[in-house]
Amino acid sequence: MKNEVLYLLLDNYADHEVAFLSSAIACDGGGMRRQPRYVNRVVAPTLRPVHTCGGMATLPDYSFATMPQECAALVLIGGYGWQSEEAEQVVSIVRTMREQGVVVGAICNAVSFLAAHGFLNNVRHTGNGLEQLKQWGRENYTHEEGYVAAQACSDDGLVTANGTGYLEFARELMLLLEVDTVENIEWFYRFNRLGYIDFMQERMK
Amino acid sequence: MKNEVLYLLLDNYADHEVAFLSSAIACDGGGMRRQPRYVNRVVAPTLRPVHTCGGMATLPDYSFATMPQECAALVLIGGYGWQSEEAEQVVSIVRTMREQGVVVGAICNAVSFLAAHGFLNNVRHTGNGLEQLKQWGRENYTHEEGYVAAQACSDDGLVTANGTGYLEFARELMLLLEVDTVENIEWFYRFNRLGYIDFMQERMK
Repeated sequence: MKNEVLYLLLDNYADHEVAFLSSAIACDGGGMRRQPRYVNRVVAPTLRPVHTCGGMATLPDYSFATMPQECAALVLIGGYGWQSEEAEQVVSIVRTMREQGVVVGAICNAVSFLAAHGFLNNVRHTGNGLEQLKQWGRENYTHEEGYVAAQACSDDGLVTANGTGYLEFARELMLLLEVDTVENIEWFYRFNRLGYIDFMQERMK
Repeated sequence: MKNEVLYLLLDNYADHEVAFLSSAIACDGGGMRRQPRYVNRVVAPTLRPVHTCGGMATLPDYSFATMPQECAALVLIGGYGWQSEEAEQVVSIVRTMREQGVVVGAICNAVSFLAAHGFLNNVRHTGNGLEQLKQWGRENYTHEEGYVAAQACSDDGLVTANGTGYLEFARELMLLLEVDTVENIEWFYRFNRLGYIDFMQERMK
């Protein structure tokens, strides 16, 4: 469905990299959104539960076989599953989505996976540091000069981030998807990055 | 089990408030811990899936009926379920754990729930601002002078935090549970609070 944001999760995924974007899509500062523009859905290799790094079990909405061909965005979440055989199946999924012009996000080790499969060679990007991109990417990563030392980077419909860039990653994807007004997205970002106490002090200045 | 950290989740729970603590218990900076001191477990009203605010389905390990009597910590995660009938059942669970001296954590609306049931009246605490604690707590909240304007607060085995205090909440619980060395816990905290880019700049000063 065109209003679905698909989070592609492999076993031992990093749940902190899903949480902020998915909750901001469903909720605003006042609670659950009454008319959210998008719906969050989980895609995993099979319909069996996938687990967070911490061991919690998440039930997928779709498997690789049943996932929709259309969506608003495909978001590849980091973690320790991106060097597995299962991950290889994601190559064709990403290729199809990129060809269709669908917004794609990748964070942490999922960016390194993109490097390993040549998806970063025509876009500005960031990730878990240049060294990791080169290490995973080897001869398939040929765009070192496109690396940006930033928490997150958005270029040509592809948003990349390092693993601590969970909030900047969410912000860039929210902006691309127009989840809310620019002002509200910035509020969301600063409130969570600074934390309530520092945020309130900043406002009182 | 004495090595289990129990996350008590109600429907529409805030997954960003679970993610950092649970992943830090299972992983360190280098990946999955080989010999983690604790195991994360999900407790929910029933064994049916509970949903994040964003709509993701989490499979509980235990229901209120099957949860163990012993654990290392009970962690009440915020979200939009804390004024439901189901939440009333949590009162006796918290009372038992506090009487046994088990470490208890509560974040965001879960702290306001504690205020509503008189659990904050003999400890220093924080939460989603004093106004919300008074609003939810009414006549059962009589310890306004114990309120601390901080991201998180730890006193007498009870850790409280506001919803943006997800990292400070994790830090205080990790310190109480001795999940890692004090230095590693501080590294975890600053790395995630500052983000990789600012963290590296700070180290190069």
